[in-house]
Amino acid sequence: MARADGRNPDQLRPVTITRHWLAHAEGSVLVEFGDTKVLCAASVQDTVPRWRKGSGLGWVTAEYAMLPRATNTRSDRESVKGRIGGRTHEISRLIGRSLRACVDYQALGENSVILDCDVLQADGGTRTAAITGAYVALVDAINWMRERRMCPGDPLTGSVSAVSVGVVGDTPMLDLCYAEDVAAETDMNVVMTGTGEFVEVQGTAEGAPFDRALLDKLLDLATAGCAELAELQRKALA
Amino acid sequence: MARADGRNPDQLRPVTITRHWLAHAEGSVLVEFGDTKVLCAASVQDTVPRWRKGSGLGWVTAEYAMLPRATNTRSDRESVKGRIGGRTHEISRLIGRSLRACVDYQALGENSVILDCDVLQADGGTRTAAITGAYVALVDAINWMRERRMCPGDPLTGSVSAVSVGVVGDTPMLDLCYAEDVAAETDMNVVMTGTGEFVEVQGTAEGAPFDRALLDKLLDLATAGCAELAELQRKALA
Amino acid sequence: MARADGRNPDQLRPVTITRHWLAHAEGSVLVEFGDTKVLCAASVQDTVPRWRKGSGLGWVTAEYAMLPRATNTRSDRESVKGRIGGRTHEISRLIGRSLRACVDYQALGENSVILDCDVLQADGGTRTAAITGAYVALVDAINWMRERRMCPGDPLTGSVSAVSVGVVGDTPMLDLCYAEDVAAETDMNVVMTGTGEFVEVQGTAEGAPFDRALLDKLLDLATAGCAELAELQRKALA
Amino acid sequence: MARADGRNPDQLRPVTITRHWLAHAEGSVLVEFGDTKVLCAASVQDTVPRWRKGSGLGWVTAEYAMLPRATNTRSDRESVKGRIGGRTHEISRLIGRSLRACVDYQALGENSVILDCDVLQADGGTRTAAITGAYVALVDAINWMRERRMCPGDPLTGSVSAVSVGVVGDTPMLDLCYAEDVAAETDMNVVMTGTGEFVEVQGTAEGAPFDRALLDKLLDLATAGCAELAELQRKALA
Amino acid sequence: MARADGRNPDQLRPVTITRHWLAHAEGSVLVEFGDTKVLCAASVQDTVPRWRKGSGLGWVTAEYAMLPRATNTRSDRESVKGRIGGRTHEISRLIGRSLRACVDYQALGENSVILDCDVLQADGGTRTAAITGAYVALVDAINWMRERRMCPGDPLTGSVSAVSVGVVGDTPMLDLCYAEDVAAETDMNVVMTGTGEFVEVQGTAEGAPFDRALLDKLLDLATAGCAELAELQRKALA
Amino acid sequence: MARADGRNPDQLRPVTITRHWLAHAEGSVLVEFGDTKVLCAASVQDTVPRWRKGSGLGWVTAEYAMLPRATNTRSDRESVKGRIGGRTHEISRLIGRSLRACVDYQALGENSVILDCDVLQADGGTRTAAITGAYVALVDAINWMRERRMCPGDPLTGSVSAVSVGVVGDTPMLDLCYAEDVAAETDMNVVMTGTGEFVEVQGTAEGAPFDRALLDKLLDLATAGCAELAELQRKALA
Repeated sequence: MARADGRNPDQLRPVTITRHWLAHAEGSVLVEFGDTKVLCAASVQDTVPRWRKGSGLGWVTAEYAMLPRATNTRSDRESVKGRIGGRTHEISRLIGRSLRACVDYQALGENSVILDCDVLQADGGTRTAAITGAYVALVDAINWMRERRMCPGDPLTGSVSAVSVGVVGDTPMLDLCYAEDVAAETDMNVVMTGTGEFVEVQGTAEGAPFDRALLDKLLDLATAGCAELAELQRKALA
Repeated sequence: MARADGRNPDQLRPVTITRHWLAHAEGSVLVEFGDTKVLCAASVQDTVPRWRKGSGLGWVTAEYAMLPRATNTRSDRESVKGRIGGRTHEISRLIGRSLRACVDYQALGENSVILDCDVLQADGGTRTAAITGAYVALVDAINWMRERRMCPGDPLTGSVSAVSVGVVGDTPMLDLCYAEDVAAETDMNVVMTGTGEFVEVQGTAEGAPFDRALLDKLLDLATAGCAELAELQRKALA
Repeated sequence: MARADGRNPDQLRPVTITRHWLAHAEGSVLVEFGDTKVLCAASVQDTVPRWRKGSGLGWVTAEYAMLPRATNTRSDRESVKGRIGGRTHEISRLIGRSLRACVDYQALGENSVILDCDVLQADGGTRTAAITGAYVALVDAINWMRERRMCPGDPLTGSVSAVSVGVVGDTPMLDLCYAEDVAAETDMNVVMTGTGEFVEVQGTAEGAPFDRALLDKLLDLATAGCAELAELQRKALA
Repeated sequence: MARADGRNPDQLRPVTITRHWLAHAEGSVLVEFGDTKVLCAASVQDTVPRWRKGSGLGWVTAEYAMLPRATNTRSDRESVKGRIGGRTHEISRLIGRSLRACVDYQALGENSVILDCDVLQADGGTRTAAITGAYVALVDAINWMRERRMCPGDPLTGSVSAVSVGVVGDTPMLDLCYAEDVAAETDMNVVMTGTGEFVEVQGTAEGAPFDRALLDKLLDLATAGCAELAELQRKALA
Repeated sequence: MARADGRNPDQLRPVTITRHWLAHAEGSVLVEFGDTKVLCAASVQDTVPRWRKGSGLGWVTAEYAMLPRATNTRSDRESVKGRIGGRTHEISRLIGRSLRACVDYQALGENSVILDCDVLQADGGTRTAAITGAYVALVDAINWMRERRMCPGDPLTGSVSAVSVGVVGDTPMLDLCYAEDVAAETDMNVVMTGTGEFVEVQGTAEGAPFDRALLDKLLDLATAGCAELAELQRKALA
Repeated sequence: MARADGRNPDQLRPVTITRHWLAHAEGSVLVEFGDTKVLCAASVQDTVPRWRKGSGLGWVTAEYAMLPRATNTRSDRESVKGRIGGRTHEISRLIGRSLRACVDYQALGENSVILDCDVLQADGGTRTAAITGAYVALVDAINWMRERRMCPGDPLTGSVSAVSVGVVGDTPMLDLCYAEDVAAETDMNVVMTGTGEFVEVQGTAEGAPFDRALLDKLLDLATAGCAELAELQRKALA
C-alpha cells in the first residue's frame, strides 16, 4: 500500500520547528508536520486560576483553534457561532493535559503558562503537531521565567511529543495526512515523554474494531515516531 | 492494596441493568455500576441530520449530562450557564462513537436513534456505565423499529460495553469508584465489542507517565471486565 | 364524564413519596403523581447569594428541568440550545417562591438550600408534584442542618403542597394527567399551606374565559386536594 | 390606611391611553397607569410560526421588556447580558396568553400579530398596563388588516384588560404603585374580559399566606377595576 | 433636486429637545430630528469600571438600541437573539467616544455616567440625534452630581453635537431622513464641538467613491449643521 | 519629532505582500506593515446569503479577528467568551464595506467571496493592513473564479487600499505603529481607490478635537500613502 506522498508506513512527514515566530509571546513556535502548520504561543502570567490561589502551585493550560480557512472548505468561526465545538474542547483539553505531564507545579510557583495553538493550515495531525510544537514554546517560556527568577525551581520534568498512527487499507501507518486520516479504519493519537513512556493513548475504531495484535503494532509505530520527534525537539532547542 | 469496598483488583462493582425504566422512550435502561446510576433513554426518529439526508443511511448519536446533585457537591446546570462544558462534550462524543461501532447505517435506513444518558448519581465510571447501559437501550429501540418494519435490515452488528481501569497505589484495578479514580496515577477507559475487539482506548497519565508493561496489564484487566459486562448485557436482553 | 384512568373528578392519582433516593444530597425525594416522576434534591450551602451577604438571612431557591425524554416526544436539551426556555424559568420561580412561603430566613441563618427538581417522566402536573416533593426534601435538608447546628432557629414555619385543577368537558377535575391537561378549558395550579391557606393561585383560561362560580368550584377542589397531599407529606416524614 | 398618592383603596390611578403613538406600527399605544408608561406596538405579519403553517389559523404573541433606566436604579440590558431573564419571559408569556383569549384564530387567517410592550417608565403594574394597552393596539392592528381584507372573518371575540390588586398593611387595594407593591403581603394580577369573566388569575403570597375570604375580596376589587379599564378602552377606541 | 419633505439641501429637520422626560434618571431627554425620536437617559453611578478603579478618574459610556418596531418592518430583539449586532456595537461605541470628548475625567472623579439611547422611532440619523440629545442629558446628570458635590471639579469641557450629511442624486444634503439615506451615494456622520472642531468624521461611499472636492462640501454642510444644533442645545439648557 | 523607528512622518513602514500563503484558499495573502502581520484568506462560495438569493447579484464580506497572543498581553478568545466584541464587529464591517467598493455584484453573479483577516501579530494599523492585503487575496480569488467561468463578467471595478494617519505630539504622521497609535491625539483610517478617491474616512479625536486645517493635512498624508500602497499591490499582482 503506497502512501499518497510516497512515504514509508513508518515514516514521519518533514517536520519543521521554527522558534521565536512571534515578537510578543514569551515562547512561540511555528510547527509544521508536512502541510499542517500550527502556530503555538506560550503566554506567561504571574497569577493562577482562582481555584488554585494560595496553593503555591502553578498551572499550565492550552487552547486550540483553527482559522476558518485552514481546511479545504471554509468553516464558520466559533466566535461567530458563539460556542466552542466539542472537537475544539476535546483537543484543547488533550493538549493541556499532555503538557502538564512534564511540569512540576511546585517548581513553577504560582504562575501560569497558557499555550495557544492556532492551526493556520490543516492536513491531518493538527493536535499532535500542536502538542509537539507547544512543548518547545513552553520550554522557551519557562526559560524566560527562569531568567527573571519567577520560578522557585526548574518546572520542567521532561519532554513531551505526540504523533498519530492509524490503519489505512490493512497497513498500520505513522503520522497520517488528511487523506489518510479520512480513509483510516483505526485512528490513534499517542503522547509520550522523551524517555519513552506514555502520557496519553487515544485509539478509536473509525471503521471495524481492532484486535490486540493490531493495537500492539500501532503502539510500536507511535513509540518510534515520538522518539524521533523528541530528537527533533531537542535539536530545535539546542 | 485493599479496595475501599473490599473488592479484588480485577472485580467489577455490582452491576444492575433495568430495562423499560421509562414509559415513553423506545428503549430505556437504568444502569447501575455500584452507586453510579445512569438513566439511558433511546429515542427513535424517522429522520436523519441534514448533512445525511438522501444518503439512505441512518445515524446514532448520544448526549451525556449530569443532574446537578449527582455528585457530592452541587454543580451549576449547563443550561443555566448557557454552555456545554468540555467534559460533557467529550463524553457525549465518546458514547456516540462507541455505539456507532455496532450499527450498520445501511440496515438502519434513514432513521436516527438518540441516546440520552443522564447521570442521576455519580460514583466514578459514569461514562463506561452510560455506554454499557445505552447499548441495551439501543437494542430495545432497534427492536421497536424492526417490529414496525422501519429498517431495511438488521442494524445491529454486535454488542458494545465499556469499563474503566487504573493504577491506584501501584495496583492496576478494574472499574474504579470515585475515591479510587481521584487517587489513580493512570486512568483508562476501554470500549470493546462482545467479541473482544477494541472500539476505543483512552488512557491518561494523571500522575506519572506509564510504561508499556503497565499499559498491557491495564488492557488485560479491561478485556476481562468488558467480557463480563457483555455477558450481563446478554442476560438483561434475554 | 369518565376520566381516562377511571378516577372520580375529585380524586388524586396514586402519590408516592420516596425519601433518601440519592446518596449525596442533604435531602432527596422521588415523588410520583401517577406516571409523573420528579426527582427533588435539596442541596445545603453555607453561603447566600451576593445581594444577601451580611444580612443574617438565609435563602431558598429552586431549579426545575425536564430530561429530554421525560415526554412522549424527545425535546432538545436547554444546555445544548444554550438558553433556558420561558416555561422552565417560570416553573423554577414558582417552586422557589412556594417553598420560601414556609421558611423563616432569620432562623435559617446565612445558609441556602437549593431545590433541584428534575422531571424524569412527565404525565401532567410536574410542577405541582415538584413542589410537593421538594417540600419533603427541604425538611430533610433542614433537619440535616439542625443536627449540625447550622441554623440559629427552626426555619420551618409550616408545610406546602400543590395540585392542579381544571375543567375538562364541563367537569371540574383534580390533579390532571397529561391527556386531561391538553383537553382542559381552564387550568389552575394551586399551592397551599398545611393549614389550608393559599400561597399561590395561578388560573388560566386555555379555551373560554371562566366565571366566578367556576373559579370557586376549582378552588374547593384544590383545597381538598392540597389537604390530602399535606397528609401524605406528614406520613412520609413520620 | 392612607395610600401614598391619596387614592381610595378601590381606586385606579389616572389612566391614559394614547393611540397612534408611533408612525410605522399597524397599531400603537402609549398607555399610562399613573407614572407607569408602556409603549405597546402591534406588528402585523402575513405569516405564522413554522409549527402553525398550513393550519389556516393565525397567531398572536407578545414580547415585554424594560428600558434600562425605566426604574429607579439602572438595570443591565438583557441584550448585553445575552439572555432574557425569568421575569421577562414570564410576563411576555402572560401578555401573549391574555390577548389570545380574545382572538379567533380561524377568523384571523394565517396571519400573526406581535405585541411589543416596552416599559419606558416603571412605577408598579407594568404587566397589567401592558395588557390593557396592548389590547387597544391589537384592535387597531386588526382593523388595519380588515381594511386590507387580510382576514377571513372578524378575529376579535371580546376585549381584555388587566389590573393588579394586593394587601398592603391589612388593606386590600387596587392597582398598586411600586411603593405599595414592595410593601404588599399578597399580590395578585387579574386579567378579565370586557364581559367580566376571568382570563388569568395569578395570586402570590409575598409575605404571609392568605385565606379564602381575603382572596374573595381581592377578586371583587379586581373585577371592578377591570370593568373600569374596559370602559376606558372602549372610550379610547371610540 | 427637491427633498422629500420640501427642505433646502442645507436645512435641518425640525429639532425638539425635551428635557426631564423620565422621572427616575439623573438626566433624560427625548430628542426628535423630524420623525426620528430617541430617548436618552443619563444614569449616574458612584463607581467606575474595574480597570479604572483607584485611578481617581471617571468614565462616560453609552448604549444604543432600537425598539423592535422603531422601523418600518419589525426587527427581532437583540435580547431574544442573545447577541448585540455589529451595527448596535458600532453606534454605542461612537456615542460613548463622542461624549467623552467633552468630559474631563479628573474633574469627574471616580464616578460614571451611562448614556442609554433608545430609539423609539427611526427615520434616519438616529445616531446623530442620539449624540445630540445625550449631550443634553449628560449636562443635566453632571449638574445633578455637582449639586450633590460628587465631583472634584467641573467635568464639562465643552459641548458636542452631531449630524449626518450625504450625497443624494448629485446634491450634497444635510440631515438625511431614511428615504434619503437609502438613496445616498455617500453618507457621512460628523460629530463636532460647540466651538466648531471635529470630534469624529465617518464618511462612507455607499455607491461610487467620492473625491476631495465633494468631501470638502460635505464637511462644510456638516459644520454649519452642527453649529445650529449646538445653538439648539444651548437654548434647551438655558 | 522623531519617530520610534526613525521613519519620516510621511513614510510607510516596510510593506510585504506574500501571495499564495495558504494551500487551500482560493486567494491568500500574508500582508506585513512593519511588525503587523495579517493573514488574509479569500474563500469562494457559489451561493449568496439568503436575503440575496435569486437577485442575480453576488456578495463580498469579511471577518476580522486577532489571535490571542497577537498583542503584547494575551487577550481572551472571543470564541471562549461566546461573543464577538464591538471592536471586532466594527472592523469586520469596515473591511467588507471597503472591498465591496471595488466589486460589481452583477458581474460577480450569484457567488460570494468571504475575506478572513486574522491578525497573527499586531503593531498598529491591523485594519488598514487587512484591507490592503485582502484586496490582493480578493483579486486572486476572482481570477480563480474567472478561470472556472463562474462569473458572468469582470467583477473588479478598481483597487482598494487603506492606511492610518494621526497626530502624535503635534506632528501629523503616516501609518502609525502601536506606540504611536497609543500616543496619538487624533487617529484616522482612510480607505481609497487606486484612482485616488475616498471609500471610507474615519477620523477620531482621541485627545483634543481637531480643526479643519489639521484634517486637511491628514487627508493629504493618507492620499499619498494609499497611492503608494496601490502601487505595491499592483507590483505584488504583476
